Amino acid sequence: MPVDLPTPFLCVDVDVLEANLRAMAAGAAARGLALRPHAKTHKCVRIARRQMALGAKGLTVATVREAEVFADGGLDDLFIAYPVWPSPQQTARLRALARRVALRAGVDSAESAAALGRAVPGLEVLVEVDSGHHRSGAEPGRAGEIAVAAQAAGLRVRGVFTFPGHAYGPQRQRSAQEDESTALATAAASVAAAGLDAGVVSGGSTPTAALTTAGPITEMRPGLYVFGDAQQIELGTADWSQIAMTVASTVVSRRADRVIVDAGSKILGADRQPWATGHGRLPDHPDARIVALSEHHATVTLPDGTPLPALGDTLQIVPNHACAAVNLADELIVVSGGELVDRWPVDARGANT
Amino acid sequence: MPVDLPTPFLCVDVDVLEANLRAMAAGAAARGLALRPHAKTHKCVRIARRQMALGAKGLTVATVREAEVFADGGLDDLFIAYPVWPSPQQTARLRALARRVALRAGVDSAESAAALGRAVPGLEVLVEVDSGHHRSGAEPGRAGEIAVAAQAAGLRVRGVFTFPGHAYGPQRQRSAQEDESTALATAAASVAAAGLDAGVVSGGSTPTAALTTAGPITEMRPGLYVFGDAQQIELGTADWSQIAMTVASTVVSRRADRVIVDAGSKILGADRQPWATGHGRLPDHPDARIVALSEHHATVTLPDGTPLPALGDTLQIVPNHACAAVNLADELIVVSGGELVDRWPVDARGANT
Repeated sequence: MPVDLPTPFLCVDVDVLEANLRAMAAGAAARGLALRPHAKTHKCVRIARRQMALGAKGLTVATVREAEVFADGGLDDLFIAYPVWPSPQQTARLRALARRVALRAGVDSAESAAALGRAVPGLEVLVEVDSGHHRSGAEPGRAGEIAVAAQAAGLRVRGVFTFPGHAYGPQRQRSAQEDESTALATAAASVAAAGLDAGVVSGGSTPTAALTTAGPITEMRPGLYVFGDAQQIELGTADWSQIAMTVASTVVSRRADRVIVDAGSKILGADRQPWATGHGRLPDHPDARIVALSEHHATVTLPDGTPLPALGDTLQIVPNHACAAVNLADELIVVSGGELVDRWPVDARGANT
Repeated sequence: MPVDLPTPFLCVDVDVLEANLRAMAAGAAARGLALRPHAKTHKCVRIARRQMALGAKGLTVATVREAEVFADGGLDDLFIAYPVWPSPQQTARLRALARRVALRAGVDSAESAAALGRAVPGLEVLVEVDSGHHRSGAEPGRAGEIAVAAQAAGLRVRGVFTFPGHAYGPQRQRSAQEDESTALATAAASVAAAGLDAGVVSGGSTPTAALTTAGPITEMRPGLYVFGDAQQIELGTADWSQIAMTVASTVVSRRADRVIVDAGSKILGADRQPWATGHGRLPDHPDARIVALSEHHATVTLPDGTPLPALGDTLQIVPNHACAAVNLADELIVVSGGELVDRWPVDARGANT
């Protein structure tokens, strides 16, 4: 065990993290794409600053509260990639943010644009369109009319964005990235045809990042690449050498054919896509599977004939979904060469509002 | 919307909570069962104190850290219902706890009993047995030999326990409760045959609580009954009138046939059993379903012909698994008659170690 702390805890290998940050920054630069990493994955001001130092154009966040936390941390160019509904409670906070930093938000309907324009006059917005994930986002061909409504409401339209979340499936990265490009091209043309600014054409997602090229897309917003996770391993969009974060756990119980460790859903997260092979993966035991997960128990099986770990042994587990695991921890334990070198607070943990 | 706060947040109806606490306390008392509620559900000292005031014998917790938090809150009879492995980091903490409160822990093997005995001499333990959930816990017939090992290691054996987690499935409550009774009877007899104390025979779980009777069981450890959740609704082990906690969310986007609200997996939790109908339920729209969940989006569909909620409307969502949702929040917003009456900290949020 590299670090003498009670398990379970989140362990970040700073050298792998740095390599991941550099590789994505270099890849975006080589293709002429602006990089605006999604900070919901790491929720950590220290990592955001490093992303900026390596050339990121700004940061993406999911909530007003995340924007506040990163603004407090000195990040001054923030895009809330979300169809923000300006409730009375949110309006004053958005106005204050817009005075402190370069702020941009999402809109996906004329009605929400009207409300946002009343709440935060002059706010920069991107029109969100649906590229196939069927979550929020307007039909791409309607981006122009929403942009016109936003402009009329006093917002400043700067372009369009989408999240190709349907890339999260086996062999779906290429088609989802094509959907993303097509939807964004349609949306940008629709906004331009309405005589408004479609200069920012922003796509997203770690699984599609390697496939993204400039034109129509100008900017990408990957998040998970900083740590990788078991989903990326199983999708083939990260390899083991890119896994920068694990949960350190202890074997607390053994049966004939399995061990139980003390990392459960309250540290790993319960996210499990239908195609996942289990509730996380073990880098030191690639053939092991986590076949069951409770709040404080993970049940780990190994292939027949593999010696079982002993009681008290430490096992490193890669969570299925790094964003969920980070949001369950107060701090990241930072290691280099197996030694503890730092502890970073998860500044935006629980920043849901 | 009852409370003027930014969404999403956890909203607890204190009157429903109180009714749930009273009903479980009365039901246990009427059957001659000691009640030792599992505090991992609420993680809240205020609720634990109320459980004690209503006659609970003590509290159950899942981790050493939870025990520390509740000890700090004045709770002085704590059972860590977990096969505690006394790592060097945990040993000093367990010793300190054992000096402050009546402390009990679980053991499920001779080897872990030996380690625990070396670490915390004189600690009271219950032998954990497997009643069909196949997580931690020894075979019931081996409880005696583990008890003997525990005694030899300097621990004080007080009985046996199990968690019938396989009750979490449709129509499985009765058979799981029978399994629990059988396993505990076997385990208690095995310990008694070894000449050791099997006075505490402790079972668990909210789904089986109504079916549990005294003999061999002496104590129950339900947790979820305080709040209820969508799992309990769909299992039929709670009804809507017993739902004490919801997530307040705002409609941020609308499509032709669905709305998107701002409560995602980072407040609802991602827990979803294979038999669940979705990612949570809506008490005001019992026929609605949450068909997709991202970190900050829930996609809600309603039956054909039902008018869709408007942008900005507040929707109350019952999480699938209340324990997971509570662990994602810093505080519980407490209401009575639709008005805010208090805010309770989630004292043991993130207390994983």
